[in-house]
Amino acid sequence: MINHRGPEFAAMLARILDGMKPFFGTTRDVAMLTCAGSGGLEAAIVNTLSPGDRVLGVSIGSFGDRFAKIAGIYGADVTKVAVEWGQAADPAAIRDALLANPGYKAVLLTHNETSTGVMNPIGDLAAAIREASPDSLILVDSVSGLGAVPFEMDAWGVDVVVTGSQKAWMAAPGLAMIAASDRGWAATETARMPRFYLDIRTHRESAAAGQTPFTPAIAVVYQVDEGLRLMQAEGRDGIFARHEACAAASRAGLQALGFELFADPRFASKTVTAARLPDGHDWKVFNGAIKSHGVVLAGGQGKLTGKIFRLGHLGSVTVDEILGAIAVLERVSIEQGRRIEAGLAVGAAQAAALAIQTGGASGTGSAGPGATAGTPSEPAAAVPA
Amino acid sequence: MINHRGPEFAAMLARILDGMKPFFGTTRDVAMLTCAGSGGLEAAIVNTLSPGDRVLGVSIGSFGDRFAKIAGIYGADVTKVAVEWGQAADPAAIRDALLANPGYKAVLLTHNETSTGVMNPIGDLAAAIREASPDSLILVDSVSGLGAVPFEMDAWGVDVVVTGSQKAWMAAPGLAMIAASDRGWAATETARMPRFYLDIRTHRESAAAGQTPFTPAIAVVYQVDEGLRLMQAEGRDGIFARHEACAAASRAGLQALGFELFADPRFASKTVTAARLPDGHDWKVFNGAIKSHGVVLAGGQGKLTGKIFRLGHLGSVTVDEILGAIAVLERVSIEQGRRIEAGLAVGAAQAAALAIQTGGASGTGSAGPGATAGTPSEPAAAVPA
Repeated sequence: MINHRGPEFAAMLARILDGMKPFFGTTRDVAMLTCAGSGGLEAAIVNTLSPGDRVLGVSIGSFGDRFAKIAGIYGADVTKVAVEWGQAADPAAIRDALLANPGYKAVLLTHNETSTGVMNPIGDLAAAIREASPDSLILVDSVSGLGAVPFEMDAWGVDVVVTGSQKAWMAAPGLAMIAASDRGWAATETARMPRFYLDIRTHRESAAAGQTPFTPAIAVVYQVDEGLRLMQAEGRDGIFARHEACAAASRAGLQALGFELFADPRFASKTVTAARLPDGHDWKVFNGAIKSHGVVLAGGQGKLTGKIFRLGHLGSVTVDEILGAIAVLERVSIEQGRRIEAGLAVGAAQAAALAIQTGGASGTGSAGPGATAGTPSEPAAAVPA
Repeated sequence: MINHRGPEFAAMLARILDGMKPFFGTTRDVAMLTCAGSGGLEAAIVNTLSPGDRVLGVSIGSFGDRFAKIAGIYGADVTKVAVEWGQAADPAAIRDALLANPGYKAVLLTHNETSTGVMNPIGDLAAAIREASPDSLILVDSVSGLGAVPFEMDAWGVDVVVTGSQKAWMAAPGLAMIAASDRGWAATETARMPRFYLDIRTHRESAAAGQTPFTPAIAVVYQVDEGLRLMQAEGRDGIFARHEACAAASRAGLQALGFELFADPRFASKTVTAARLPDGHDWKVFNGAIKSHGVVLAGGQGKLTGKIFRLGHLGSVTVDEILGAIAVLERVSIEQGRRIEAGLAVGAAQAAALAIQTGGASGTGSAGPGATAGTPSEPAAAVPA
């Protein structure tokens, strides 16, 4: 531990808050809070809104539901747009909702909906909102998206964006980062929802003096500092291509194993892939076998419990690791009596990744692991063990 | 990292929440939140109070001011009792304040006021409050006290107690633990201050299922688990005696160096010792020299900036480390031209610690370091380097 009121911490904090800006796509100030991503969502709301404000909560899954719920708890007048799970929000539908009922103070959007494996087209949605309701604040939950895929907060006219340390930043959980536009920062001065610990104004003031207002999760700050250094070394294009390749490999591999993908393919997440569990497929038995091989899958949340499973490919995850995970899924599927040709799914995943990372698919699935392990953007990584 | 929705995490969470209860002095439920201690203070307030509630904020320093400020931000009607810095709160004065003006919904107390090095007599204060105003909730900030000194929440009739991972628990910052009495938990059902992230009801519900409602600071959870294991091995009596001895050694050493102690000696903190900087003593020069020897002191906060400095002895700190720190202070003081006999301060500190840990003072200051390093409660520790 170091003194979080000393010069070493001040230098680290400045590196992080400045270093994250290109990933947010902003030149404006970023605040770092010690809390989970959900604390960051609460910060987005209580710092910009007042009780009674009309808010349009666009939900495409359980995290969208949560974002809207927080606004309601603090007294906002929330209208919810509930999109069918597995689908993204439709810019035209959001525009129509805003035009039909003008005067929304804010629109809440989820960038990457972890519960369904869907990534909303934030740029298109923001353009539709800006056109239909120029004065509405656009608040975006990008906890599990930012850093892994392109995001252009300033260019898109987004006002507040939230992310979390344990996602693209490759660190342990414990920190939420939140950026605001000029309009977003101005809103913090007039917002009347009560706040103290999550007040981003005091975080900005303290950051100007090289500190946080409250004792930060110092160990996690160190990790984010190192994660960001690795990200800067890999470069944004390399990171984005790696996530694209991992997502494509996951989709191709799972489909070759006979699983139906849950998300609309046009909006499939680049950081998590959800697949339906076939009828009669017992999640606990399946997951227990997968876990015995050292691969940790996530089950479905809420109404999707027992109906889908999710394969994460966010942060430090490499194509090699995804190939390893697909191999485990293949093996367990065969062991559990499903008729699957050994190697087919791994080959399909390999080809899909190669198509993105080298610009040309091999199509044969015969390339060895070395084919991806040798690319500069791909650190050598062990298959999960 | 492990899956925080899996069985390994559930076992660790249960170990921590149960293992902390004896240190709180309670058999009631404890909640663990990912936030700084100040987030825990906010949780204590928003979970038990409603806007308009009358609250008596007893402040003996900057953290007491903060506790009262949070209540005000959320709409409580706060009356402040501001005690002179360096002094503890007087039970008779608090009783009189409650009797003169009945109907306070809650009384806010600071156990260990880090800013002044004063420890309030919570048992005596709680008894006075219970006598004068039986229905008032007693909310206690023990962020930097709990675990290091005796605390009997149930026996004293205290309703909510907050602590932080980076203090007695010897872990990195990032987690706040909060315990509530039956009356405290009942208050969470009627409290109308808005809350979501800090709502301890959802934390209790999730804990019953082996989870936290939001992604926790897992790395810090591991550390608290290990810290608690070390504490259980040392035992409460050993821990409390070690903190007593470190505090006594710090006071004796600093006084022998000619520094005047800041806190009323009857209520001097067992976890941090504050001393006045003599007139003309430049804090930056003094602190820079001390830091070059690897000893990190804290300066004064707020109105005490440049007027006091503080020596911490909380958590894993041993008497040996305090003796080493006093030796550095002695050396720097001599180098800076103060007339001090070499060895006198270390000897005085040594004797004070021995008087507590062996029950008899040597009085001569001639005992070697082995005299304390060999006691069972004292792990061998290097002098700060």
